[in-house]
This record gives sequence, structure tokens and C-alpha cells, in this order.
Amino acid sequence: MLSQKMLELGKKSSVIREIFEYGRVRKAEIGVENVFDFSLGNPSVPAPQKVTDVMNRLIAETPAEVLHGYTSGPGDLKVRTAIAENIKTKFQVEATPGLIYMTCGAAASLTIALNAIAEEGDEVIAFAPFFPEYRVFVEQSGAKFVPVSCKNDDLQIDFDLLEKSITPNTKAVIINSPNNPSGVIVPEKDVIKLAALLNEKQKEYGKEIFLISDEPYRELVFTGEKVAYIPAYYDNSFVCYSYSKALSLPGERIGYIFVSPTMKDSSDVFAAVCGAGRALGYVCAPSLMQYTISECLNNTADVSVYEENRKILYEGLTDIGYTVIKPDGAFYMFVKSLEEDAYKFYERAKKFELLLVPSDDFGCPGFVRLAYCVDTDLIKRSLNAFKELYEDYKND
Amino acid sequence: MLSQKMLELGKKSSVIREIFEYGRVRKAEIGVENVFDFSLGNPSVPAPQKVTDVMNRLIAETPAEVLHGYTSGPGDLKVRTAIAENIKTKFQVEATPGLIYMTCGAAASLTIALNAIAEEGDEVIAFAPFFPEYRVFVEQSGAKFVPVSCKNDDLQIDFDLLEKSITPNTKAVIINSPNNPSGVIVPEKDVIKLAALLNEKQKEYGKEIFLISDEPYRELVFTGEKVAYIPAYYDNSFVCYSYSKALSLPGERIGYIFVSPTMKDSSDVFAAVCGAGRALGYVCAPSLMQYTISECLNNTADVSVYEENRKILYEGLTDIGYTVIKPDGAFYMFVKSLEEDAYKFYERAKKFELLLVPSDDFGCPGFVRLAYCVDTDLIKRSLNAFKELYEDYKND
Repeated sequence: MLSQKMLELGKKSSVIREIFEYGRVRKAEIGVENVFDFSLGNPSVPAPQKVTDVMNRLIAETPAEVLHGYTSGPGDLKVRTAIAENIKTKFQVEATPGLIYMTCGAAASLTIALNAIAEEGDEVIAFAPFFPEYRVFVEQSGAKFVPVSCKNDDLQIDFDLLEKSITPNTKAVIINSPNNPSGVIVPEKDVIKLAALLNEKQKEYGKEIFLISDEPYRELVFTGEKVAYIPAYYDNSFVCYSYSKALSLPGERIGYIFVSPTMKDSSDVFAAVCGAGRALGYVCAPSLMQYTISECLNNTADVSVYEENRKILYEGLTDIGYTVIKPDGAFYMFVKSLEEDAYKFYERAKKFELLLVPSDDFGCPGFVRLAYCVDTDLIKRSLNAFKELYEDYKND
Repeated sequence: MLSQKMLELGKKSSVIREIFEYGRVRKAEIGVENVFDFSLGNPSVPAPQKVTDVMNRLIAETPAEVLHGYTSGPGDLKVRTAIAENIKTKFQVEATPGLIYMTCGAAASLTIALNAIAEEGDEVIAFAPFFPEYRVFVEQSGAKFVPVSCKNDDLQIDFDLLEKSITPNTKAVIINSPNNPSGVIVPEKDVIKLAALLNEKQKEYGKEIFLISDEPYRELVFTGEKVAYIPAYYDNSFVCYSYSKALSLPGERIGYIFVSPTMKDSSDVFAAVCGAGRALGYVCAPSLMQYTISECLNNTADVSVYEENRKILYEGLTDIGYTVIKPDGAFYMFVKSLEEDAYKFYERAKKFELLLVPSDDFGCPGFVRLAYCVDTDLIKRSLNAFKELYEDYKND
């Protein structure tokens, strides 16, 4: 009667959702301040005042039938021009509005890009740990999802394993730096190595392999580590961007796909992007938000709170004795589970009112993810609970 | 290298887009006031002041991280509750927020609903003339698109043909009343007959056949004709709604899917809707717009201008001698082509600066569509051109 695939997807609540629901109930029981909820990657800082100011001005000054009218499918031309200019200035790469497609956020950017390129029998590689929806998006496009584990000690690309995983069916590789769920940034030297490997494989198989850079966390970097801009290193690349985190606008669904002009047959690729957007039911990205972000391209929400949170949490946890993967950016931290089964570790942490996400769904068992986009005070108070949890294991 | 299907979709510009581009160039040549452009269904009236007022208040009074934060996937619960209550009051049918899924507009409503139910081998029926994207959306879901022609004289359902077109593979029927492109409303007696036929076929084949009501033009009715509310007549029904036309917010992409509580296994169906939304990359509908429309459920843009336009154009054209299908609603009118090939008619009309859309892409050759969501003055001035066109044919 129904699409079994969609029914399963709709019914299977993710572990994160399960933890979130547990947290909701628990907070009602013992008070919101007593639950150390690190489960959700929801920006905790407001959008910059500039966003509100621009929105107010647009509403006051633009005729409603223009402001809220359809833009063209790929987005308003002035908006796309502003973004292209901004990309050129920021990253010193070529960019044209004709290769920028405005989307309803990062998830739409990915599904549209994947549907534009994928055909039956294709394989799409993602590095584990990965954002769990990658699997959903890749499989919906008709391709096979191929996770490639990172090195267990630093969660960086394992190039030997990657090389073995690339086949003549590999259509694309997804790179996500800063990474959700680990906060890890892929260093420039590894991006160079990745580009070289993909170029070599393209030659070997006589076909294109696309590199899709999913980078909603680009602006959330706290260590001085450089986030390499993929089109500067590899020709056949897409940038899938979203303003959800940089401008704290996750509910508004606004982002874009940038098809690198260095891509082979880039205008055909862009046409396929437009076709995919059309087929998936995306008519245009929300118009008020298109106009708004186009005036805020050099703004970011005040992310200093994430920086402070990261410092307190990282130092606090390592002082206690936890093994933490160096978290360069985003607002996530990956911590080694104190027992093999991270799900059991998560259950035990709950006794200390700590809500951590076991890493199995991220394709990388043995860790928990901490989303530290929460109150700084809560982080400070949580350290005692982490200490008790640690000692509970020592006393086993 | 690319998805050939998506590349084709992206490259094949629709006739409407082609006419729009021609119009843009022509307007630059001879002045915008001298081109009678009836090609685009873009609301010409502004959103009601209430929409702007609510938006301003929400921005002023709601913390930005809440207003622009993620809502749950199906949408904010308070918003969905308000919509459910509104449906109950307006249409006297049962409705619960648990069966309402907020979407990024009508196209998203349709693609998500179709993907929730369609499996390989399924067939989905739409009545011709139909909105051309129906074919795209149905085929993307994996089903076969089955157009069923309406009666040529009034463009109402041809029940004999419909009955012959329903097979054991029929998964759904799409109904669109008021209709784009014809402006025709399906009378209540035909909805009753349709429900009876589908119930009979469900019994015969021992399976569900869904009725999907695509009704963005529900509020645009000018003849007193009643628009039957499908869930009141048929159990296994979806309502796919959008605020694009009623509130003149087409660029903002906001609408919903309502799964009728009378549907078999409605909560499973709703889960499949959630799964499909997830797979297609819809994280949530734009948050500011969700909150805004929830306070404007009984408002509509001032559609009296469409009513006036309709009257002038309908009377003017029939006076000249054109055959016009009775246009009850939406802002479209279907006029019989003065020669068999509507594309040739469209070309000849261009000589008189009339931009009309030939009906072939709507699956119903021999007509042109006029979108009369334009300035009333332009309509008045266009009548002379229509007269000259008519006489040009008489003099053949």
C-alpha cells in the first residue's frame, strides 16, 4: 500500500531523536538545569542583529508581491551574483552566478547534487564518522552508499582504505570539514592528497569522480586550522553550503550549491542540478531569506560562546582522563567510550544525567558525540558528572 | 557522467519559460505596456497586510534563535494544531495535528505525498489538462504517469474514460480543483461520483487507491461554485495545500499535507510522509513562515482584482466570438485555439503582442491558457488585440 522504504524511514526514529525525547521527559521530572543534554546540534546563539535589521528593512521597503514573489528556479540573480563575488573574494577561485543554485538548506543542497549526478549502479563514498542522513540521501538518489572508515586515533582520512574503496562505479566522494559528528577538520595536506588520488583514479577509469564538499560548519573553526576550499584543489567539485549554522538560521532553510567552473561540462552539470531541484519539488529557495542572506555574506552569528564551550569541555574532559579527538571546529566533540559498546556507555552516562550520543549511527563505533552548542554554565556544571561517570568505570 | 533524466529535465525549458523569455525581450523592445503577457501564473496582488503585521511582530518579539530555529520535521506543533482546528471549522471534517505535515509549498506537498505511497510499477492518474510538473513529480516517485482526458466541451471528468483507465496498478488519482490550467471547478456531484467509482475499484482490486487533492487555488473562486473538500467525500485522501496563491506568498514556499484521519492506516501513511520528506531533503518548512501563516488562516490576499479581470476577459472574449471554457476559479482561462495546432495559434497571436500558452504541455491540445493575474488595464487594452487576431483568422 505504501512505499516500504519511506515507511521504514519515517518509523525508524534516530537514536538522537530517542535521546532527545528521553531528555524532554527527564527535564520535566528533575528540572531542565539538572540534565546535561549534549544530544542536539541546534545552534544556541541568535542570528546576528544584521540579519534582523536587513529583514526589517526589506519588509518595510519592498512591495510584498515582489519580496514574497517567485524568484527564478536557481534563485534571484542579484543574490547569486553577490554570492559568486563573495566566493571569489574569500577563496580566490573563479565563480559565476550561472553556476550557483539557491537551496532550502544543506540537506536540499546534498539531495539535489546527488540526484543530479547519480545513476543506478553508482557508488558514493563518505568518510566515517558521517552525518547519518548521508546514507538516506545517497540511497534515495539510487546510488549505493559506501562508508570508508577514518583512522581510529585521529579520525582523519585513511588513504589506503580509501584507495581500496574506489571502484569504476565510484561517482562521488563526500567530504565534510569541519565534520559533524567529530568536529575534525581535514588538513590542507590531506585535501591535496585526496585531490591527487581522485585525479589518478579518474584517469585510470576514464571517468569523472565528483568531490562534494558539505560545509555548513565552515565558519565554526576555533584552532586556527585552515579549512581548505575544495574547488581550489579539485576540478570536479561541488560546494554544498547552508546558512543554518553560520547565521543561526536553521529553521529558515537557506543555502546553495556551487558548481565549480573548473568542473567538466559545468553548464550541463548545472542544468542537471536544476532538473533535480525541479523533480524533487524545489520550486525556489525561500525568497525573503534569499534577499536577507545576500546582504549578510560577511556576517556570522557570535560563535565565541562555542569557542569558550569547546575549551572548557575539552580541557575538563582530558583532565579527568577521557580520550577526546582534537575538535577543531563545528560544535561537536568525539569522546572515546569507556567500554567497547558505546550504547552501553550512553546508558550508564544517563545515570549521571549526561545525554551523549553513541557513535554507531555515525558509522564509527566506540565513541560518543557531544554537541556543545549549549549554555556555558551547563558545561561547567556537567564536568562533575563526567568525573563521577569516569570514576564509576574505574570502580568496576 | 550525469543523471540523464535530470539533465534532460534541466535542459528542456518549458514552453511557458520560453514565452516568458520572449516576453522579456519583446517588452524591452516595445515597452512593457504594449505586450499583453498572459503567460505566467504569478500572483499580482500583495500579501494581506495582516501577513506583514504578524511577521513584523514575530521578528520584534521572538528571540531569533527560537524564531529561526529548527521546528520538528513535520512542523511546529502549535502551527499544525491551528491548521487542524481551522480545517475542522471550515470543512466540518475530522483533523488532527498528528496528520498534518508542513511543507515548502505545493510542489513539495505533491512530491512528498507521491514518494510516500509510490512503488515501482504503480500508476498515478491525473486529469488532462494538468499542471505539467505532475508528470515530473509522478515519474520521479517511480510511478507511471497516466493522463486521462477530460470532456472536450467543458473539461470536466470523463467517467467512462476514467473507469477504463483504472487498473490493478492504479495507486492514486490527482484532482486539482480549481484547476490550473483551465480554471474549472469539479462540481460536487462529480466528486461524489468519483468517490463512488474509486470505492468500487478499491473493492474490486482489494487494494487502496488514494485521492490526492492539489488545491492551492481553493480560495480563488468567483462564481459561487462550491469547491468540495475531498476528505469529506472519500476516505483515502490527501490534501496538498499551499499558501502561495491564497496569501500571495509563492516565493516563500509554505504549505502542508493533510492526511485524512479516515484513511486506512493513517498513522502509517503519515510516517511514510515523514520518511519521504526526510529522503527528499526537506528538514522542516521555513520556520518564520510557519508561524506567520498560522495566524493568517482566515485571511486571503485581495483577490477581487482577479474576479474583475476574469469578468472583463471572459465577457470580452466571448463577445468577440471566442469559445472559452467556463472559468470558475484560479486565475486561468482556457480558450479554444482558432486552428487545430495551438502552437501555431500562439505564434500568430504573438504578432498582435498577445502572449498565450499553447495547451499541448497541459496534455490537452487545441487550447491556449490565459493567466489573468495581470493589471486590469492591460486586460482592457488587450481586447482590441484579441479582436484583431480573431478577424485575422476570419480573413484567412
